[in-house]
Amino acid sequence: VEFKVTILGVGAAVPTLQHHPSSQMVTIRNHSFLVDCGEGTQMQLLKYAFLKPSRIRAIFISHLHGDHVFGLIGMLHSFALQGRQDRIDIYGPSGLQQLIDVQMKVTGAQLPFPCVIHQIDCQTFQCIYEDSKVAVWSIPLRHRIETSGYLFREKQVARNIIPETIDQYQMAYQTIRAVKAGEDLVLPDKSVIPNKDLTTDPPAPRSFAYCSDTRYTETILPYIKEVDLLYHETTFCEDNQAKAEKTMHTTAKEAAILARKAEVGYLITGHYSSRYPKTEVFLKEALEEFDRVSLGEEGYTYSLEWKGKRVVKKVGPLEH
Amino acid sequence: VEFKVTILGVGAAVPTLQHHPSSQMVTIRNHSFLVDCGEGTQMQLLKYAFLKPSRIRAIFISHLHGDHVFGLIGMLHSFALQGRQDRIDIYGPSGLQQLIDVQMKVTGAQLPFPCVIHQIDCQTFQCIYEDSKVAVWSIPLRHRIETSGYLFREKQVARNIIPETIDQYQMAYQTIRAVKAGEDLVLPDKSVIPNKDLTTDPPAPRSFAYCSDTRYTETILPYIKEVDLLYHETTFCEDNQAKAEKTMHTTAKEAAILARKAEVGYLITGHYSSRYPKTEVFLKEALEEFDRVSLGEEGYTYSLEWKGKRVVKKVGPLEH
Repeated sequence: VEFKVTILGVGAAVPTLQHHPSSQMVTIRNHSFLVDCGEGTQMQLLKYAFLKPSRIRAIFISHLHGDHVFGLIGMLHSFALQGRQDRIDIYGPSGLQQLIDVQMKVTGAQLPFPCVIHQIDCQTFQCIYEDSKVAVWSIPLRHRIETSGYLFREKQVARNIIPETIDQYQMAYQTIRAVKAGEDLVLPDKSVIPNKDLTTDPPAPRSFAYCSDTRYTETILPYIKEVDLLYHETTFCEDNQAKAEKTMHTTAKEAAILARKAEVGYLITGHYSSRYPKTEVFLKEALEEFDRVSLGEEGYTYSLEWKGKRVVKKVGPLEH
Repeated sequence: VEFKVTILGVGAAVPTLQHHPSSQMVTIRNHSFLVDCGEGTQMQLLKYAFLKPSRIRAIFISHLHGDHVFGLIGMLHSFALQGRQDRIDIYGPSGLQQLIDVQMKVTGAQLPFPCVIHQIDCQTFQCIYEDSKVAVWSIPLRHRIETSGYLFREKQVARNIIPETIDQYQMAYQTIRAVKAGEDLVLPDKSVIPNKDLTTDPPAPRSFAYCSDTRYTETILPYIKEVDLLYHETTFCEDNQAKAEKTMHTTAKEAAILARKAEVGYLITGHYSSRYPKTEVFLKEALEEFDRVSLGEEGYTYSLEWKGKRVVKKVGPLEH
């Protein structure tokens, strides 16, 4: 059952030939979400044909700097032209409603699907979205304007039933569902088989945290504690520490320190300043602090799978 | 002396893998202008490295549909981050000021260069911009919202002086300038050499008209009469005539009829609906009505040159 994060853009403020502005697609058990939507995101979604933009249920915008939001209005327009009818929910800081409203008004466009904008409180860690498969929390970040990270956590899946017990106790469909939900089995003679003899533990719920843009802050540690995947911005390396401080960004070293302290499964880097012509420097610096780091790159998908233990598989754009 | 039009996007409303939304760069004797600015235009400007975005003096927006304007705010932000200090003037329909204002406000950004927005009257053919080398006129178009085309016409260049006459009459620098400007030469003995004996006619001023988006309308014929280059939208072919009528677009055949009636030098097609997987059909249809047609393609430059007569040279993206 899938839990995947596809990187659409890891550039910082100024687009380059190498990198697109911020955007990622998160798919958890067939429910898809977009996080940030820089200019050109809809073209990136076209480029990676294995993605299904029509399935996006909700969009989460971290903050209203252009490289995180300027692709949103164009994507909504294209959804309209493509005949989308499904409701979409958009979460982000205050100002988002006004931004969309004015753009809709001056272009004279109307969306043929419900589009509900939720302006969130960027100062609070709280659940802002929930459906049958996933819940999303806001993570307060420290940037030059109101900014929120997002934590995606899948809902607990059903327990694994031991296949032999189904025949042994001649379980009906409803009984199987009840056992998988954790109930004990009551036999016709009123004797009770405890659930632990019928099932094994399912994999723990998987989680992904998106933290961009932000200055290094340990206040987020409780929220990102032990997440399987952490995307944390690494706009600079340590050679630009003062600049990171001033512009309220994070260095690769600092992001790796946070990953280590939070004991995350895997750190993905990104939001690379255009002053670095090659991105390997971010990986090298981060690896000095934490050994499970992956250099975020456009088109790559991180898939969280269960092979007796939790594993992260990185899949290239042509491997789907 | 250059007069060039580089095509950055010839897609219609929905971006595709093949085509970018509308944008073109016009360079006339070192003065550069952008016409329309769909999403991703700043990336297109990066891709075609022979272009110099920092030299753009003014931007002309035809109308406020997203595929013609959604790249503007991001490009202005990037100009700011790249340290631009030169003033920029932006021309377009009413609503443009509000669109830019709100986007600047919510992103918390400030432009470090003067950015002057001119909301133009889209119902009138009039000169809206003029500098030492070029004048730009608005062309009233017929679309679903207020829309203006643009006519670029270079200023008359100086007359060609006949080189031998300079020595013959021992002309000083100021005298040469006066003769090139059309004055007769008065010799020390007060005798007069008429200008026609000293100079030959310079090439006629070159011109380019941009007409997109619009329904077929002959009201534009006087404004585009005999222009050297006409970019006219060809959103559909005749198989979608009814759709062209309804959505207020033009077919390839209709655009070619206009080109023929206006006796233009060259017609460039574009703004292709995504329903046509291949664009050759637009060329084929247009050629049935007019024989000087070029299929507009991203990255191609049309250069107007003088080789005894006016010629159009089409230059590919790698030939610069």
